[in-house]
Amino acid sequence: MAYEFKITRRVEFSETDMAGIVHYSNFFRYMEAAETAFFRSLGFSLMTRQVSPHVGWPRVHAECDYSQPLRFEDEFEVHLLVAEKRARVLSYEFRFRKLNANPPVEVARGKLTAVCVTRDAQGKMSATPIPKEIADKIEVAPKESLA
Amino acid sequence: MAYEFKITRRVEFSETDMAGIVHYSNFFRYMEAAETAFFRSLGFSLMTRQVSPHVGWPRVHAECDYSQPLRFEDEFEVHLLVAEKRARVLSYEFRFRKLNANPPVEVARGKLTAVCVTRDAQGKMSATPIPKEIADKIEVAPKESLA
Amino acid sequence: MAYEFKITRRVEFSETDMAGIVHYSNFFRYMEAAETAFFRSLGFSLMTRQVSPHVGWPRVHAECDYSQPLRFEDEFEVHLLVAEKRARVLSYEFRFRKLNANPPVEVARGKLTAVCVTRDAQGKMSATPIPKEIADKIEVAPKESLA
Amino acid sequence: MAYEFKITRRVEFSETDMAGIVHYSNFFRYMEAAETAFFRSLGFSLMTRQVSPHVGWPRVHAECDYSQPLRFEDEFEVHLLVAEKRARVLSYEFRFRKLNANPPVEVARGKLTAVCVTRDAQGKMSATPIPKEIADKIEVAPKESLA
Repeated sequence: MAYEFKITRRVEFSETDMAGIVHYSNFFRYMEAAETAFFRSLGFSLMTRQVSPHVGWPRVHAECDYSQPLRFEDEFEVHLLVAEKRARVLSYEFRFRKLNANPPVEVARGKLTAVCVTRDAQGKMSATPIPKEIADKIEVAPKESLA
Repeated sequence: MAYEFKITRRVEFSETDMAGIVHYSNFFRYMEAAETAFFRSLGFSLMTRQVSPHVGWPRVHAECDYSQPLRFEDEFEVHLLVAEKRARVLSYEFRFRKLNANPPVEVARGKLTAVCVTRDAQGKMSATPIPKEIADKIEVAPKESLA
Repeated sequence: MAYEFKITRRVEFSETDMAGIVHYSNFFRYMEAAETAFFRSLGFSLMTRQVSPHVGWPRVHAECDYSQPLRFEDEFEVHLLVAEKRARVLSYEFRFRKLNANPPVEVARGKLTAVCVTRDAQGKMSATPIPKEIADKIEVAPKESLA
Repeated sequence: MAYEFKITRRVEFSETDMAGIVHYSNFFRYMEAAETAFFRSLGFSLMTRQVSPHVGWPRVHAECDYSQPLRFEDEFEVHLLVAEKRARVLSYEFRFRKLNANPPVEVARGKLTAVCVTRDAQGKMSATPIPKEIADKIEVAPKESLA
């Protein structure tokens, strides 16, 4: 049972904007990269074709609080924590830490809520219980580690 | 005094993901496009060089609730409402409505909080009161129009 | 029969990079936006579900020459010209002109080559002749208008 | 003296489009990521503040030929080769190889030409000779390795 995952990245040039900092929308791409790696660490893809029927994870809520900017070539960690696990829903919290600071410093916190869905032939999505194979591998993080 | 602004867009191919819908991070780019157009309608740029010293608007909070997907070539409206105006902070709410539905349907709601800052020569940002020229043109939306 | 199309856009904040100019990769998104609008003007989508079987247009070649930067809030025109029409292939040329200059000035030129494909159930793509309904509406631009 | 550099990446969900493959514009972001890492391996940043005056590297030409798609979670290598070194210009070639194929397979080839520039206080760019500290560390790849 896993309840957290960490990835490290380095800010790319194309992720910056004319203010000289990472564009705020990219933090949501970073969250998803951590979520994807978390799933992969459990043997699943975020487009989960390892279960039948296939499931996907559209987002119903996303948010981010920004306390300091990230800049080009900054190294940072994205720390994912499972915040909630319901029949059809997984919620995550994220801590962003800039690593090339001494000491490393938290620069942002995020949240993401994803619903487990199947799709019909037309691409229409319907919420569905999280498949047991997946649910059995994921647990909620200890309360004291969550915001 | 303005408290709202609307833009319409059409979903671009590059804004979709392999799930066949607009990638969730792009809603934050859409919010910014509405904010930018709102500022422009008042005679200002979001990199506000129309005041001295220049000010910028880094985000301290952003969030979005997604109720329905947007798909390639969907036409939609982004309705910005000024939710809060403080000495150094502006907060907005956003309603996303898909227009090529009959009747048009709300597909998402967002929030954005931006801080007014100046930058020193090294790019370090410091919060600063919203310049009077800007503050005088913006007011908070009527309470009943906010979430 | 159509051989050209023009769209106008304004540079968005999220399209800039820390050098203060439009990130070079975005010109390829702009080309696609013009191509998409061109198809739409003919009654088709770029994910062409108006023909049976459905066809798509993956790219086999893309290029761009940049002569001047575009900056935040610049207004510009993307002028698409059909450069070549073969059994399974369409090639385009693009001229980017900054409109908020006096006189308007060309800032970039691009090329794009797309192959008409069908997909099997697994998503594998196979080149296929351009459907007659589409081919009948598109012709190559006059030679003197091409690079 | 260095004339090549390799990075490996994994396709992210946000890099895909509704056709289920990496959006073609992202290959240009991948090229830049390899170029950035190449510079970093030499002790420089692409926003080169390690020399005086600072220099930047806007692009004057970019192109890519696509032979096979990359899909979500594919692992791939970007192999940068220095194709040309002139007084004020560096040109690169890129080979993209999908690594999770047996054997690994080339999926695309790219080219990028960047000009060394300084900026004045208004952000206006002027071409300038490549600083000796940088030029001394970079050489052109062996002819037989180039396209």
